[in-house]
Amino acid sequence: MNHNKLRVFSGRANKPLAERIARCLGDHLGNLKVESFPDTETSVRIEEDVRGRDVFIVQPTCPPVNEFLMELLIILDAFKRASPNRVTVVLPYYGYARQDRKDQGRVPISAKMVANLLTAAGAHRVLALDLHAAQIQGFFDIPVDHLMAAPVFINHIREQGIDMKDVVFVSPDEGRVKMTLHYQKRLGGELAIVDKRRSSATKVEQQANMIGASLKNKVVLMFDDMISTGGSIVGAAKVAMLNGAREVHVFATHGVFCGPAIERIRESAIKSVVITDSIPLAPDKQLDKIKILSVDHLLADAMKRIHENESVSKLFE
Amino acid sequence: MNHNKLRVFSGRANKPLAERIARCLGDHLGNLKVESFPDTETSVRIEEDVRGRDVFIVQPTCPPVNEFLMELLIILDAFKRASPNRVTVVLPYYGYARQDRKDQGRVPISAKMVANLLTAAGAHRVLALDLHAAQIQGFFDIPVDHLMAAPVFINHIREQGIDMKDVVFVSPDEGRVKMTLHYQKRLGGELAIVDKRRSSATKVEQQANMIGASLKNKVVLMFDDMISTGGSIVGAAKVAMLNGAREVHVFATHGVFCGPAIERIRESAIKSVVITDSIPLAPDKQLDKIKILSVDHLLADAMKRIHENESVSKLFE
Amino acid sequence: MNHNKLRVFSGRANKPLAERIARCLGDHLGNLKVESFPDTETSVRIEEDVRGRDVFIVQPTCPPVNEFLMELLIILDAFKRASPNRVTVVLPYYGYARQDRKDQGRVPISAKMVANLLTAAGAHRVLALDLHAAQIQGFFDIPVDHLMAAPVFINHIREQGIDMKDVVFVSPDEGRVKMTLHYQKRLGGELAIVDKRRSSATKVEQQANMIGASLKNKVVLMFDDMISTGGSIVGAAKVAMLNGAREVHVFATHGVFCGPAIERIRESAIKSVVITDSIPLAPDKQLDKIKILSVDHLLADAMKRIHENESVSKLFE
Amino acid sequence: MNHNKLRVFSGRANKPLAERIARCLGDHLGNLKVESFPDTETSVRIEEDVRGRDVFIVQPTCPPVNEFLMELLIILDAFKRASPNRVTVVLPYYGYARQDRKDQGRVPISAKMVANLLTAAGAHRVLALDLHAAQIQGFFDIPVDHLMAAPVFINHIREQGIDMKDVVFVSPDEGRVKMTLHYQKRLGGELAIVDKRRSSATKVEQQANMIGASLKNKVVLMFDDMISTGGSIVGAAKVAMLNGAREVHVFATHGVFCGPAIERIRESAIKSVVITDSIPLAPDKQLDKIKILSVDHLLADAMKRIHENESVSKLFE
Amino acid sequence: MNHNKLRVFSGRANKPLAERIARCLGDHLGNLKVESFPDTETSVRIEEDVRGRDVFIVQPTCPPVNEFLMELLIILDAFKRASPNRVTVVLPYYGYARQDRKDQGRVPISAKMVANLLTAAGAHRVLALDLHAAQIQGFFDIPVDHLMAAPVFINHIREQGIDMKDVVFVSPDEGRVKMTLHYQKRLGGELAIVDKRRSSATKVEQQANMIGASLKNKVVLMFDDMISTGGSIVGAAKVAMLNGAREVHVFATHGVFCGPAIERIRESAIKSVVITDSIPLAPDKQLDKIKILSVDHLLADAMKRIHENESVSKLFE
Amino acid sequence: MNHNKLRVFSGRANKPLAERIARCLGDHLGNLKVESFPDTETSVRIEEDVRGRDVFIVQPTCPPVNEFLMELLIILDAFKRASPNRVTVVLPYYGYARQDRKDQGRVPISAKMVANLLTAAGAHRVLALDLHAAQIQGFFDIPVDHLMAAPVFINHIREQGIDMKDVVFVSPDEGRVKMTLHYQKRLGGELAIVDKRRSSATKVEQQANMIGASLKNKVVLMFDDMISTGGSIVGAAKVAMLNGAREVHVFATHGVFCGPAIERIRESAIKSVVITDSIPLAPDKQLDKIKILSVDHLLADAMKRIHENESVSKLFE
Repeated sequence: MNHNKLRVFSGRANKPLAERIARCLGDHLGNLKVESFPDTETSVRIEEDVRGRDVFIVQPTCPPVNEFLMELLIILDAFKRASPNRVTVVLPYYGYARQDRKDQGRVPISAKMVANLLTAAGAHRVLALDLHAAQIQGFFDIPVDHLMAAPVFINHIREQGIDMKDVVFVSPDEGRVKMTLHYQKRLGGELAIVDKRRSSATKVEQQANMIGASLKNKVVLMFDDMISTGGSIVGAAKVAMLNGAREVHVFATHGVFCGPAIERIRESAIKSVVITDSIPLAPDKQLDKIKILSVDHLLADAMKRIHENESVSKLFE
Repeated sequence: MNHNKLRVFSGRANKPLAERIARCLGDHLGNLKVESFPDTETSVRIEEDVRGRDVFIVQPTCPPVNEFLMELLIILDAFKRASPNRVTVVLPYYGYARQDRKDQGRVPISAKMVANLLTAAGAHRVLALDLHAAQIQGFFDIPVDHLMAAPVFINHIREQGIDMKDVVFVSPDEGRVKMTLHYQKRLGGELAIVDKRRSSATKVEQQANMIGASLKNKVVLMFDDMISTGGSIVGAAKVAMLNGAREVHVFATHGVFCGPAIERIRESAIKSVVITDSIPLAPDKQLDKIKILSVDHLLADAMKRIHENESVSKLFE
Repeated sequence: MNHNKLRVFSGRANKPLAERIARCLGDHLGNLKVESFPDTETSVRIEEDVRGRDVFIVQPTCPPVNEFLMELLIILDAFKRASPNRVTVVLPYYGYARQDRKDQGRVPISAKMVANLLTAAGAHRVLALDLHAAQIQGFFDIPVDHLMAAPVFINHIREQGIDMKDVVFVSPDEGRVKMTLHYQKRLGGELAIVDKRRSSATKVEQQANMIGASLKNKVVLMFDDMISTGGSIVGAAKVAMLNGAREVHVFATHGVFCGPAIERIRESAIKSVVITDSIPLAPDKQLDKIKILSVDHLLADAMKRIHENESVSKLFE
Repeated sequence: MNHNKLRVFSGRANKPLAERIARCLGDHLGNLKVESFPDTETSVRIEEDVRGRDVFIVQPTCPPVNEFLMELLIILDAFKRASPNRVTVVLPYYGYARQDRKDQGRVPISAKMVANLLTAAGAHRVLALDLHAAQIQGFFDIPVDHLMAAPVFINHIREQGIDMKDVVFVSPDEGRVKMTLHYQKRLGGELAIVDKRRSSATKVEQQANMIGASLKNKVVLMFDDMISTGGSIVGAAKVAMLNGAREVHVFATHGVFCGPAIERIRESAIKSVVITDSIPLAPDKQLDKIKILSVDHLLADAMKRIHENESVSKLFE
Repeated sequence: MNHNKLRVFSGRANKPLAERIARCLGDHLGNLKVESFPDTETSVRIEEDVRGRDVFIVQPTCPPVNEFLMELLIILDAFKRASPNRVTVVLPYYGYARQDRKDQGRVPISAKMVANLLTAAGAHRVLALDLHAAQIQGFFDIPVDHLMAAPVFINHIREQGIDMKDVVFVSPDEGRVKMTLHYQKRLGGELAIVDKRRSSATKVEQQANMIGASLKNKVVLMFDDMISTGGSIVGAAKVAMLNGAREVHVFATHGVFCGPAIERIRESAIKSVVITDSIPLAPDKQLDKIKILSVDHLLADAMKRIHENESVSKLFE
Repeated sequence: MNHNKLRVFSGRANKPLAERIARCLGDHLGNLKVESFPDTETSVRIEEDVRGRDVFIVQPTCPPVNEFLMELLIILDAFKRASPNRVTVVLPYYGYARQDRKDQGRVPISAKMVANLLTAAGAHRVLALDLHAAQIQGFFDIPVDHLMAAPVFINHIREQGIDMKDVVFVSPDEGRVKMTLHYQKRLGGELAIVDKRRSSATKVEQQANMIGASLKNKVVLMFDDMISTGGSIVGAAKVAMLNGAREVHVFATHGVFCGPAIERIRESAIKSVVITDSIPLAPDKQLDKIKILSVDHLLADAMKRIHENESVSKLFE
């Protein structure tokens, strides 16, 4: 009579990640049929009984953002009417996260509206990864568990065996100083900041300004939550090289890679770009210098803890 | 101090129609900037002061449905935070209207969810045209004004001067009998129904079955609320011709024309297809036999009446 | 500590059906005292502990509709404050279902309002039977399970052993064509439609029009979701007889039988009227030609499945 | 363009009062058609344009309470969808007001549920008269204006020119002491309380107990908010007469008069019963000793003040 | 996997009572850190895992009322985001309960607003003790269990072995008659009421008026739900003594004792004041004549019953 | 009939500012009586008619934060029930703004809860000044206008006539880099950042680290949104002096000054602290080196624009 079993379902945004998560949990994906009608409407059917189940829907709202977001909302409506015990939306990537404030008059706060839509469509809780701003948790009145990929990156960096005396952590602009410090405190090394005021948006001057430690002959590590068109991070890398850096490595949770991103990275001086599989990397975007770390175990652990009523914050102790 | 002025804004779904409506109202479109970021997120900015205005947003949620629907929701959020007096969503076409019931287990009722999303995003009222099912009005707790394009079609047919003794109104299947009767009662002529049970989905038999009046040498008029892939209406037209019809004319409010629709219509025996401009017709879809009637005056009249607190139902008397 | 037991309660609308359902479930009805004060207010007291129980309240909102609907709402409020685990409203008949759209200006959509009232009063889910329009499911944001009595009727017809070659399925008007086809497809036989345009509302012409198969010497089966004043179905039966039918049998889920209904049926040419016990039939309305099939097993099975978190849609496979 | 005009509409509960109110406001009643279908469902149609109007719906939810309450809810839904500027429900009598608390386990708080239903159906504000408990105002989150008929009664008593030295104000039980004091403070005279503990519910003892001033040869005035079956007030009057009272006059805002009320009053020693027209008095209930004061001016004044944004509490200064 | 364990937490309002309750339940208090920042903001952290637990938060909103109420709301928000199975607010004292109606124009109904705030902050249910007005239950749409301390007082009085023939139950004003009768009916003795009209608010006349039984040489018992500044009860006691009472004992659930209360009681003729520990008594307020009865068992029993889905109303049979 | 007049009301948190704002608007404060009962409950009465008015309530939720927040909520409830046309909460300071995210497990997001409470209590819109995080706007679903005091500070600095070649803008930590850049971009001068990693929380080292421009003999300007205990800003000032700065000036919108703040500032090397009057400065906290700029005109202008339906964002062009 009590079927309160954990079941993982996936939309079409990142089915490979959802499958890896299910495997971590010793299960396979639930049967969810998602298709597009010829008129572009999305058609959804849950093809197994889900009454009383503890349902997790894995769907990063990555590009095409509007498409995958609407798909998620329609999936939620189908579950709302199918009587599961609880529905948790797993958002490895939260589209529209950067539209989180009104920085000018008469613009939307789309990140808040997305939170309202998810709630209106029937989500009971949310599991997110490296939100662009932590305040997005407060956009929801339902519980949000917020995971960080930092431990995944830190483990990876430690495994490389780099001598931290050779390393400078460089913040690509003033908005990333805090995040850069987070890593520098845990790993050692020195700190520097690219002073973007002197480096114009379109072309970077020969002698762009840096604040902080010298980069001469150093290994530069740079961090961001996401890489979108790549302009900002590639520009910062160029500045670092102009300032004498030996090599530049970039770490970012979400590899959005839109517009000229892949082209820019290929042609840049960046030696490696390490991302996670929160967003699937299209085959035509794969470069040798792009390395992918999986967040499958991280997400699966959190889902297991949520299902078994255990603390998720313990994951970070 | 009181700026309660009617202002029409448009998303990107059908700007030409919105412009025609604004012109009917003796105004031009409000300044609303809608763009796509490289990562496919939608960016919206209202570029004029709208505090206290009576705002109408024209946006059919036609294909790409998810894209135009999300765009509409983000526009609504921008207006919600910009303090207009009232926001009316004008939906010449309501995407997902056909997903209006649970005809099998564990499917969404997407048409209801769309109603919930529009309300959650900040719509105060809705103006719709020829909803697939009238019950969709009841999906909303905000007021809905529901217009019908029938008078536009009836006027057009009368202007053609066809002798109604030559006409048979043919319902393309059992679900359209009621709509077909609506026209037949107003225009005269006889009635027949295509019995789809005997005409298989993929190929239509030589001697497909008809119920009702003989089509021999008659002018056949067929009506539908929308033409999607065109399969159903083209099949029915073929049956009509096999039964001796002289010519077949089709009338439909919403010309969705997706998948093989245009191809099918071009090659069919249908002599003319009359639609409205509720959905814009892409240049590569324009055929000589497709004729477009505008609903600009119809919508503009209703908007004027809503703004001036006059009865909209009087439009139909 | 875990008392999550299924318990069936009943208002005063159809206690005999509720008792039969409870018996199917191997239980007796829960103790619920419902009375009317002298000033016509309804008084409710739940006379057993229901904390943590899985409660089902059986109450068709049949005539007197307002009385039984308010009674149901007050019962719901009593349960809301008594802390059951879940409350499912079982509506074998949904009053106001026909007021499901605004077919003219300035009228209510009462069927939607009823949905809102049930939710506001504390219903967690709904179990309904043969709703007048399937879209009513979308009037709710809580889950609705929608049962159909068709299998009950089909089994009954098959048991009669009628030769289907002798049978014509007749739709009493253009709105029932779909429902009539549903039965004809499953049982065989031919199809015809009464063309109501030529048969005036008050008196039926000698040679009323039919569309479709000849009725000469045939057994006519007619279907509807409900019989209200009986005018429409009795008129259609008369037309069928005028067209040569041998005998007419009528099937309808909900026997509302108001106004002159019983009188009309008694005096009509209809040979039998088969209904279900969704609405109780008052003793003074019982006729030999009215036959009642029970939906007790159908409803009990669905309730058991809801309680045990099993698929309800499987009931229809 | 701005039609924000006050319009009064009435359901079927007390149309004569609504008409008197409209007349006080120099207008006639708005066109609202309310009927019952043969199956007892209520049918509503607003037969004039109400967009932008300031609508007041007069409907005491008096017996048959459930019928008039549902009628009011359906009227509200019709207005909600017809776009008036504001809808105020005028409730001269609030049915279910006495079910305002849980005095035992597992009962409803029907008075709160009624508040929720009115709000869910679309009421924007409420105008009530002599609520059974003032706390009912707090059951609403919409504004409630609460009028008192006391000034109407006090004026009437003063006009009778009774010498207050001859008068004792008698509370019929311990729950009415406060209300009785309200009148005694304003009019003078002495106070006494019937001690119901010694007077059994069914028959009143010869020498029933009184607390307070002697009634010997006095004129007794008794007050209540409503007279329902009349048992309590008739019993108290008998006790007063047994204690030597010269004559007994009863004042109550709401003349519900259900069950044996009229019979009891006719045969009692009560000399006069003064009520208001908050509830219509059926012709077969009219007695010479029942006198009706109208609250039409009181309600009309409050409605005018609400419409013109003036203080309603000033009515009581 | 199922941790649905009862856990008791406490804010800073009455931790000793919360600890006694936990002990009654065979447990210790949950780890909840509540502190004040230097800028007076409240800081809350739940220091143990609570996912899936059945949480009870004990917090009377006693003086400083605003402080303890905001603290409770912030605690609720912390729990709302920490995923317990259910959160019950235990309010031994409900601050703002007396502001339960609009007795004049343009004042708040703070007791209702408090109910809305508790619900908005995330309470799932409420357990209250001797609410100032029973209608406050109806201010909530979540379930409220309402306990009464009367049995605790009645047991205590019986244990004193007073001869009831010597006792008069005195209502200190007209508003407490009902409560006084409740005790008199259960314990025997006679009844009297202080007629406050003749006893001015500031100084009590020599020969203040009483209604009812003579107090000459009697033991007087007076009851109230709370003692605030003590003015009313001390005045009534003075009247009782002036009317010849032998001794006066006062019983009140909530010992608020603000302003001059303690001073007044110390200097009054009241022989004993019996209160409960719903509100903690500050050390500097303790008098020999104030006796405290604990409601720990009463609350613990109710919490156990709520947790185990057993009837709470059975506690009063 | 149309009294839609702007009226300013004030709680007790900052009445002098509210009075200055009213004066800027050519009016005096509305009559609002706010008092504390002896039991610490707050008592509110609006002492003028406000039906149909456009009401602004000025109340920074500064220390004692819980007290002033609850006072604001009760004021809101009074207005909600008094039928103004619209209620805007003017929050010159937003208490709990720093609790805007879950930086650890099981803590509240108090800033979001405050937003929910304000909405639940009846606020229609919010006018805020220098929110700690811009994302707090997204915590509301009602419109928020967000003003910045920066123009007030920039005007003030320009009026001082300092040679910008002598100035270094110093960010007191990594979280303020962005805000510091905002000023530096508008005023000229150079940039430096205090590297807090090397300066321990309790004692600051002799040679604390700086990143960026040299401070030798420079005028240092430091910015923050608020000064709370002053520890962080005083520490940063000390570092600046140790690095050779000539003088240090501090600018902060909100002068909270709690705990040892005033003591620390008095004894620090800071030459001046410029704040606004968003929070009133207690007489015992006034120092010569603390200078107050008024935001009265800024707030009054915004309120006038809101009332007159004009763009508030134009204030910043």
